[in-house]
Amino acid sequence: MSSDVFTHPVTVRYMEVDQQGVVFNSWYLAYFDDAFTAFLGAGGLPYQAMMDRGYDVQLVHNETTWRRGVRWGDDLRIQVTTARLGTTSFVLDFDARVGEESYVTASTTYVVIATDGTGKRSIPDFIRDVLGEPA
Amino acid sequence: MSSDVFTHPVTVRYMEVDQQGVVFNSWYLAYFDDAFTAFLGAGGLPYQAMMDRGYDVQLVHNETTWRRGVRWGDDLRIQVTTARLGTTSFVLDFDARVGEESYVTASTTYVVIATDGTGKRSIPDFIRDVLGEPA
Amino acid sequence: MSSDVFTHPVTVRYMEVDQQGVVFNSWYLAYFDDAFTAFLGAGGLPYQAMMDRGYDVQLVHNETTWRRGVRWGDDLRIQVTTARLGTTSFVLDFDARVGEESYVTASTTYVVIATDGTGKRSIPDFIRDVLGEPA
Amino acid sequence: MSSDVFTHPVTVRYMEVDQQGVVFNSWYLAYFDDAFTAFLGAGGLPYQAMMDRGYDVQLVHNETTWRRGVRWGDDLRIQVTTARLGTTSFVLDFDARVGEESYVTASTTYVVIATDGTGKRSIPDFIRDVLGEPA
Repeated sequence: MSSDVFTHPVTVRYMEVDQQGVVFNSWYLAYFDDAFTAFLGAGGLPYQAMMDRGYDVQLVHNETTWRRGVRWGDDLRIQVTTARLGTTSFVLDFDARVGEESYVTASTTYVVIATDGTGKRSIPDFIRDVLGEPA
Repeated sequence: MSSDVFTHPVTVRYMEVDQQGVVFNSWYLAYFDDAFTAFLGAGGLPYQAMMDRGYDVQLVHNETTWRRGVRWGDDLRIQVTTARLGTTSFVLDFDARVGEESYVTASTTYVVIATDGTGKRSIPDFIRDVLGEPA
Repeated sequence: MSSDVFTHPVTVRYMEVDQQGVVFNSWYLAYFDDAFTAFLGAGGLPYQAMMDRGYDVQLVHNETTWRRGVRWGDDLRIQVTTARLGTTSFVLDFDARVGEESYVTASTTYVVIATDGTGKRSIPDFIRDVLGEPA
Repeated sequence: MSSDVFTHPVTVRYMEVDQQGVVFNSWYLAYFDDAFTAFLGAGGLPYQAMMDRGYDVQLVHNETTWRRGVRWGDDLRIQVTTARLGTTSFVLDFDARVGEESYVTASTTYVVIATDGTGKRSIPDFIRDVLGEPA
């Protein structure tokens, strides 16, 4: 991957490691969530600012593949890339890496919704700008 | 303790067990929180009903003592008793037991507040009734 | 689904509910994990017994679809069915329901491994017996 | 406090914030745990190195006082100081701060144990050196 891929560092908490000595599977989704927020923020769109403009996102689908377990103290970094852009939904790819190696990858589908509870919305330009062109 | 002490069963999740093979310390506070809600509910006051009447509680202090680690699969039960009743605050004691043995004990101080953000309130009678007389 | 589908009840912890008032996405994977263990146990194979016989499982893939958010106090039940049986891996389907409605569904792929660190194993008969025929 | 107090930055995860919009109480204990490990590490004693020398610690008591709730995005920093040094146990104080303000404070008692399961040990000099003189 090119060096300009957005990367979010994660500090694994001791409590996130299970009896088998590796990060328990569900925590990766929490990491991806934080990485997504950081990705928006790095693109100039703090989450709160998105909501202030009347938009929020809803996670509707996730696929995760675990190849290797992250251990406490590992230098975990999550790469985030835009994989697909639809009318009301988009897909982000996540790659959880330790050093040069990919440990866990995931793909998450988000739907853009209105904050007033009226449901789906077309992705507005100011969000499209942050997501960029799919890789 | 008498047999009529309120007791809340806890199903330990696999993810709550750490590398040392015992429940990580912080989860007990989550268990106590659930036990507190169940305690109110068993006394006829569902948490939501308390809030609908304009009252909520805020946790301000907790003291926990760990004697022995709970393991995955252990039949964990938490006893809840009212330890102290003040004007605006009250203290509950928690005893996390496996079988007849006390593994972890705690004491938590709660302050009664208004749900409208105006701060502390005297504990109303309908909450006092549920808490009962301190042991 | 037929009435004999294995069903695992989940008590949602207050802390598992996020700012949006619904269970945060990652907790479902923790629920599925517990449901899987309960599924084995109900079939006569406690997790520890499986490990004592030299076998463990590794989660390698998960796909989850969120349709509706579970709230605190909801009567959540997770149905578990065997979806696929391979030589060294198997797939379980999970359906997280509140009442008659399906809120979140998932499909998880597990690989059977040896507990001595020597890697993948063919699924032994005593595990196949518990998993049963794919639906 | 003097400027040389050890300080551990915490990135609050979105999932750690509850329905009330503040970090749920139990997460602070997870933060303190990480802060403790970082405190040892900053003093030249990585946790694993301590264990490799045959020593571990066990958390036996914690007292936490919540004054104000931390929100998602807050710049949370935890100060760690040695409060008491006994023969086999020691006490650390934690101060969770946002900016100049103290939000949550805690005091935790740890007992030094042998990694071989033989119980309590006198605190060895190499650990005393890291803990330093009580404030």
